Amino acid sequence: MEQASEDLRRALAYAHAGRERAVADLVELVAIPSVSADPIHAADVGRAAGWVAARLRAIGFDVTVLETAGHPVVVGEWLGADAAPTVAFYAHYDVQPADGWTSPPFEATVRDGAVHGRGVRDDKGQLVAILQALEHAVGAGGAPVNLRVFFEGEEEVAGTSLGDLLRAEPGRWPTDAVVVVDGQFAAPGHPTLIGGLRGLLAFAVEVRGAAEDVHSGVYGGVAPNALNALAAILAGLKTDDGHVTVPGFYARVDAPSAEERAGWASLPITDRSVLDDLGVDALAGEPRFSALERGWARPTFDVHGLSGGYLGEGLKTVIPARARATASFRLVPGQDPDAIFAALQDHVAALASSGTSATVTKLAAAEPVAFDPESAAARAMRRALTATFGAEAVVGRLGGSIPVTTDLRDALTSEVVVVGFGLPDDGPHSTHERFRLEQFHGAADALLRFLHELAP
Amino acid sequence: MEQASEDLRRALAYAHAGRERAVADLVELVAIPSVSADPIHAADVGRAAGWVAARLRAIGFDVTVLETAGHPVVVGEWLGADAAPTVAFYAHYDVQPADGWTSPPFEATVRDGAVHGRGVRDDKGQLVAILQALEHAVGAGGAPVNLRVFFEGEEEVAGTSLGDLLRAEPGRWPTDAVVVVDGQFAAPGHPTLIGGLRGLLAFAVEVRGAAEDVHSGVYGGVAPNALNALAAILAGLKTDDGHVTVPGFYARVDAPSAEERAGWASLPITDRSVLDDLGVDALAGEPRFSALERGWARPTFDVHGLSGGYLGEGLKTVIPARARATASFRLVPGQDPDAIFAALQDHVAALASSGTSATVTKLAAAEPVAFDPESAAARAMRRALTATFGAEAVVGRLGGSIPVTTDLRDALTSEVVVVGFGLPDDGPHSTHERFRLEQFHGAADALLRFLHELAP
Repeated sequence: MEQASEDLRRALAYAHAGRERAVADLVELVAIPSVSADPIHAADVGRAAGWVAARLRAIGFDVTVLETAGHPVVVGEWLGADAAPTVAFYAHYDVQPADGWTSPPFEATVRDGAVHGRGVRDDKGQLVAILQALEHAVGAGGAPVNLRVFFEGEEEVAGTSLGDLLRAEPGRWPTDAVVVVDGQFAAPGHPTLIGGLRGLLAFAVEVRGAAEDVHSGVYGGVAPNALNALAAILAGLKTDDGHVTVPGFYARVDAPSAEERAGWASLPITDRSVLDDLGVDALAGEPRFSALERGWARPTFDVHGLSGGYLGEGLKTVIPARARATASFRLVPGQDPDAIFAALQDHVAALASSGTSATVTKLAAAEPVAFDPESAAARAMRRALTATFGAEAVVGRLGGSIPVTTDLRDALTSEVVVVGFGLPDDGPHSTHERFRLEQFHGAADALLRFLHELAP
Repeated sequence: MEQASEDLRRALAYAHAGRERAVADLVELVAIPSVSADPIHAADVGRAAGWVAARLRAIGFDVTVLETAGHPVVVGEWLGADAAPTVAFYAHYDVQPADGWTSPPFEATVRDGAVHGRGVRDDKGQLVAILQALEHAVGAGGAPVNLRVFFEGEEEVAGTSLGDLLRAEPGRWPTDAVVVVDGQFAAPGHPTLIGGLRGLLAFAVEVRGAAEDVHSGVYGGVAPNALNALAAILAGLKTDDGHVTVPGFYARVDAPSAEERAGWASLPITDRSVLDDLGVDALAGEPRFSALERGWARPTFDVHGLSGGYLGEGLKTVIPARARATASFRLVPGQDPDAIFAALQDHVAALASSGTSATVTKLAAAEPVAFDPESAAARAMRRALTATFGAEAVVGRLGGSIPVTTDLRDALTSEVVVVGFGLPDDGPHSTHERFRLEQFHGAADALLRFLHELAP
C-alpha cells in the first residue's frame, strides 16, 4: 500500500509536470477535422485514429487499428500488472460537424483558462486525458491494473462498428471494468458519476406530394404540399406541453429512484439556471417535471434539420413536391427503441396529409441504460472524483446517449462506469466548444486515482 | 368596315408569315435570365427591359424606360388612330428562378410543337405575342385603335414599382381598356376570359428559440426548438381538410355566380383530371368543393420554403435556435389582405411554443379582384378568342394573382380584361416550362382580332 501510494504520488507529479504537453497534444488532435458525419472528412477520421494509435504505442501499449465498414477502431492493451484486474477505457476521436462557427473550429486556442475548438470537450479532450493517465500510470513504475482502450470514430453518427466488433468476439478482450469517458459534470464543482443514459432513436421523415413542384397560383388549394404535410407530421408528434403522441411511447418509462432524486436536489441546477443557460424566458417540455428531470429522466422529441421548397433569395410561390427532416427521440430506461420505431412508422403514416406519402428511415438507435452506482468500479470512481475535485461525487444522469455502452457491458461482461469532466455550458455540438483546463487536467488526475483505487 | 376587315386580313397574313421570326424573338428573350427574385440577376432584368424597348421602337412606338427603385418599367405608345379608343397591354418580362432544372433553363428549344425554357409561357411568350400583334396591326396600314404598353419586371416578386408609378400620375396615360396578358386557357381548346383573380398575401415566419443551437442530448426536453415550433405554427395555420385557422379569414368570401359555375361545369376539368395532372392519388384541400373551385374560388395556405437546423450529410442532434419559412395565402374576392395580415400576426404569436418567439414579415400582397365579363372590352375579347380558336370563349378564373391589375384599373380608370394563352400543364414556376406553338401564334392572332373588334 505504501508502494502503491508512492506510485500514485509519482504518477500525479508526472501528470502535473506534463500539463503543457497535454494541451499541445489536444491542440494537435483537434487540428485533424475528424467529422464522422461528413464523407468529405472520412480520411481525416482515419488520420485521427492513426494519431491516437501512435500515442498509445509511445506509452507502451500493444495497439491494433481495426478497419471496419465505417471508421477505424483503435484497440490497445498494456497487460503488465499480472493478476491484477483489467480496466478498459472508452472514448471517441470523432467530432460533430462544425458549420456555423465564427472562429476556425479546428485551430484550438487556449484563453480564459480553457481550450476552445471543435471536439476539445466532446470527446478529444477527455481522450487525451485518458492518454495522460495511462502514460503516467505506466511511467511511474507500471500501472497497478492491466489496461485496455477502445477508441472509436463513429460516436457522433451513432455508428455500430465497435459494437459489431465486440458482439462478434465477446471473449476476445477479458475486462473487469469499463470506464466510458464521454459524460460531464452535472454542474461546476459537482463531480458526477453517470448513473444512467438516455437512449436515442434518430430518423429521417421524407414526404412526397405531387409528381413535381407546381405553382400555388394554379394549384394552391388542390395540390398536396410536401412542406405543409411535413410540418403537420412533425407538429403532430409532440404536443406543446412536451407529450410525444406515438402510441405506446410511455408504456414503460422507469422513474428515477428516491435516492437519485435526493442527490439531484442537492445540485445547483434549477429551472431558473437552465433558463439563463439557454437565454430564453420559458422552457420547452413537460410542465410537471423540473428542468433537470426533463433533461435527464424524461423522453422527448426534437427536429434537428428540415429543408424543402424554395430556399433562395426572395419569394417563389411554389408548392414543393418533396420535403425532408431529420429528428430524434431521446429515450429513458424502460423504453424500447425497436418497438417505438415500429409504432412511429404507423403513426407517421396516419399523420400524412391527403395526397402525400411519408417515409420514415431509421438513422440511429441507442438503448437507454441505467448503471449500478454501487458496483466496485463505480465506488472506486466516486472516491477518485471526490479526492481529485475536493467535493462529494454525485450520481447523476446524462441526457445524451453513448450507443456503445451497452455493447461494452454485454461483450466484455464487465461493469460499466460512465464519467466525464466537461461542464454543461462547454457547448459540445454547438458553434463554440470549450474545455476548461482545470477540468482537463483534473480528468487525468482522477483517472489516475481511479486506477489506484481499483487496484487490489 | 370593308377597309377594316381588309386591314385585319392583311395583319393576320403578316403575322402568319412572321411566325418563325416570332419564335426566334422568344428564344432571344428567354436567353436573358431576368430572374427578378435573385439580386444576382438584377442586371439581366435590366437587359430584358432594354430588349423589349428596342423591339417596341422598331415597331414605331414612342418608348420610355422608367427606372424605379426595383426593376425598370417599359412604357410605350402609338397614338396614330386619331379619335379611336386607346387600348393598353400589360405583360411582364421577368421570370421565376430556375433552380432544379435538368436542362439549361435559358436556352429555349423548340420540339414537339412547343417552345421549352424558363419564362416561355410566363410571361415572355405572351409578351412576344403582344409585340407581334402590335407590329402587324401597325404594319398593316396602321392600327385601328391607339396603343399603349406597360411591361414590367417585378411581377414574379409582386413588386410595386409599376403600381407606384401609376398611382403617382393617374392622369398621365389616358386609356380606355387595359388587356393584361398573363393568364391561361382553362383547358386545351377552351379559350378563356379571366373573370377573377385570386389575391396573394405572402410572408416569412421566423422563429427563435434558445440563444444558440444546443445539443439535444443535453437539453432535449428543456430547450425550445425553433424547428419544432415553426412546424407547429405552420401546421396550426391550416387543418388537414384545408380550413385556414386565422380568425376572420372567411369573414367575407364571395361565392362565384350561378352563371360562372355553369360555365365551369362545361370545362373538361374534373377532380380526376386534376389528380392525373398532379400525379397523386388524392387531392389536398376542402372536400366540399370541386378541384376547380378550390383552385379558382377558394382561399388557401401553402408553405413555399423552409430551412432550419443541420442540413448537411448524416445526422447532427442539434436543437436549432432559429428556423425560417416562406409561405402565402391565396385570397379570393371579398377578402382583405391587410386585415388578414393583422390577424395572422396575432395568430402566429399565439401559436408560438413555450420559450420561442415568432416574427411574421410581409413579403408581398395583391388584392383579389373580379372583373365585369360583360364590359365592351370583355365582349370584344370573347369574340376575338372564339373567332381565333374556333371554340366558344369561357369566363373562367385564375388561381394566381397579378398584383398590378388593380393599379391599372384604378389609375387608368379603364376596363380591365385579363387573358392568357398558355395551357394549365405548361409548367410555369416549375422545373420545366413550355408554351405550345399553336397557343403562341394564336395569341398574336387573337390580340390582333381584339384590336379590330374594339375599333369603333
